[in-house]
Amino acid sequence: MTDRSGGSGDASGSGRDAADAPSTDLAPLDAAIDDADAVGFVAVGRGSDPALRYLTRVEIPDREYAFVRLSGRSVVCVPAGAVERVAASFDGSVAADRVADPAGERAAAVLDDRGGEESASGGAVLVPRTIPHDAAVHLERAGYELRSTAAVAEARAVKSGDEVDAIAAVQRAAAAGVHEAERLLATAAVGDDGGLRRDGEPLTAERLRRATNAELARRGVTDADSTVVNAGPEAADDGRNRRSRIRAGEPVAVAVAPRGPFGYHGAVARTVAVDSDGGWERRAYVAVESALDAALAEVEAGAVAGAVGREAHAELAAFGFDPATASAPGCGVGLSRREQPWLDAGAELDAGNVVAVEPRVADPEHGVVRLSALVVVTPEGYERLGDADASFAPRA
Amino acid sequence: MTDRSGGSGDASGSGRDAADAPSTDLAPLDAAIDDADAVGFVAVGRGSDPALRYLTRVEIPDREYAFVRLSGRSVVCVPAGAVERVAASFDGSVAADRVADPAGERAAAVLDDRGGEESASGGAVLVPRTIPHDAAVHLERAGYELRSTAAVAEARAVKSGDEVDAIAAVQRAAAAGVHEAERLLATAAVGDDGGLRRDGEPLTAERLRRATNAELARRGVTDADSTVVNAGPEAADDGRNRRSRIRAGEPVAVAVAPRGPFGYHGAVARTVAVDSDGGWERRAYVAVESALDAALAEVEAGAVAGAVGREAHAELAAFGFDPATASAPGCGVGLSRREQPWLDAGAELDAGNVVAVEPRVADPEHGVVRLSALVVVTPEGYERLGDADASFAPRA
Repeated sequence: MTDRSGGSGDASGSGRDAADAPSTDLAPLDAAIDDADAVGFVAVGRGSDPALRYLTRVEIPDREYAFVRLSGRSVVCVPAGAVERVAASFDGSVAADRVADPAGERAAAVLDDRGGEESASGGAVLVPRTIPHDAAVHLERAGYELRSTAAVAEARAVKSGDEVDAIAAVQRAAAAGVHEAERLLATAAVGDDGGLRRDGEPLTAERLRRATNAELARRGVTDADSTVVNAGPEAADDGRNRRSRIRAGEPVAVAVAPRGPFGYHGAVARTVAVDSDGGWERRAYVAVESALDAALAEVEAGAVAGAVGREAHAELAAFGFDPATASAPGCGVGLSRREQPWLDAGAELDAGNVVAVEPRVADPEHGVVRLSALVVVTPEGYERLGDADASFAPRA
Repeated sequence: MTDRSGGSGDASGSGRDAADAPSTDLAPLDAAIDDADAVGFVAVGRGSDPALRYLTRVEIPDREYAFVRLSGRSVVCVPAGAVERVAASFDGSVAADRVADPAGERAAAVLDDRGGEESASGGAVLVPRTIPHDAAVHLERAGYELRSTAAVAEARAVKSGDEVDAIAAVQRAAAAGVHEAERLLATAAVGDDGGLRRDGEPLTAERLRRATNAELARRGVTDADSTVVNAGPEAADDGRNRRSRIRAGEPVAVAVAPRGPFGYHGAVARTVAVDSDGGWERRAYVAVESALDAALAEVEAGAVAGAVGREAHAELAAFGFDPATASAPGCGVGLSRREQPWLDAGAELDAGNVVAVEPRVADPEHGVVRLSALVVVTPEGYERLGDADASFAPRA
């Protein structure tokens, strides 16, 4: 349970915080192709699709492209304008789509052109279950029989050292972003009516959200439109556009899930209150803190993922809070903010899984209290990734 | 050609800049269902999917959900934990998925349960061509015949007044973000070696990118991981992680495409140079400026979209620049950063299209010069949306 949380909070890949660009081991995919006696594997999607980002390590925003794996080599079919850029970094060959080429048709052509004794069209092809339907139809019309595979999602769930480093780097920026909100709260003035002010202006959830995101930007990561600030009983579910002034004693929950340079996410949730008088929010905080500890105690390779979530819910219930309001207990974090393993499912945790454990309680009369820990699963337990200590009293 | 660029540059929806939440007119979709004599329409995707955002006006990040339209009413099938939040804002009924329910299976059940004389399973169902394959298979197994429709993409291309207002609001924030980079350049010191410094530190493309994104965050919008800064001959294609110091005379191209509160994007690209001596970069700037004007002169309802792009390329060629390096000439902007209409395609522009016209030239010895205008197409021409004037010399 060593801690990788050192460093400057800069996720840029410069200096001693530098993370190496993660690469992808396609051996599990090749094994799945062999096991299924398939011709190859095809994925189709857009640059923002995390599975395609994983397979290709390139990003082509808002454009559809195809990845083909066959006989141990990779081909990517991209729009003509992107060929030069993709060729500079892609580990395989690059085929240019014509403007009107559907990516699925282009992928079928790559399979057809594979040469050798098996060059005739036809045979089984592995695809992710969510391959776009038109691409699936193109492949089927070209004579291929599609079989869905979870090999890519399963491979993505176990992180390499470089992937863990990339997540740890963005996690340091995430902690700095949350701390910026905490700092504004710690240095706010409390008015006679209990409302918080800072720099002569009311302190609102929206203002905290913007300050947090500006700090993430300064650290070189994108907020990924995922920052949520819930303040007090009016806390909207998504915590956006909150205009009313935060009041002393109200729980203020700040959650961020920024994305860093290689596309990996972090996840930090913290809750603070200014001048809490120790009511509901303090009891909720103690319960959530205890639920987080109890859940983390379950984390180790071989444990059932759902047991982690159940432990958190049981602890909340022991403190008298309704686990039904506790929302999902957590999940994997990587190229997607939420991915395998799900902490409410029956799969076993593997060493190398990176999971966010995220207990939370909500009450319409009081607000939201949430905490999180981002950990990499090890054979003996877990290692925390770069997120700072939590404190219910905000720290400047 | 009036200008909506007034206001404070705050896209938050507060005060007089407030934009109303756009709603969706489903009449074109209902007409497509009728025309095809279909039972209904089904879309399946994740919260970040712009088509689902358009159809439902709700966002469920990283979770798969389904939208079903039948007999003039809408049903959305969402994860159980999201039902309450979605029900608060969705204009239709909300069905809860069980954890293991594939969204396509749930959508088929909604179609099966539609009641009335047509309650037997079977019939034609319209779907977007990119519906996930597993969802398509579920619907087909339930006895429905799938037909793809472009009705949603076509409806999305024509913006309502509220949609244009939302885009104009985020566009004001986009202009402020680009101006922040311009301001840093305008106030930089030029060293004896020609390198720019500010606040005692070298000015790099990465530093400009972070400052731009921090300003976007302060204005309440997300950078959407789309900010690109290209500086000088070393300009990488994606402009990220650029560490070398910017030098006087080098063209610095800053492009942003932030996303605002209702999910709509803006798009601003500007190029400046500090103490340009009037070489390649100045000639390129004049050519790109002229290409932008020439392209805009083609914009009006009924014009062929591709003619706008061709005009830009012809103008660049007239100035002696190779249009092959000029990349795509632009496209529609809305819930997706890049969407219909494509300015290199044969469709006609419609009044209400919002398009980014984006001429650009690149040269490996000099760098990148790009400009953009975001306009709403009108019967007589276009109206510019809230992006500021361009100047080759940076303004403080």
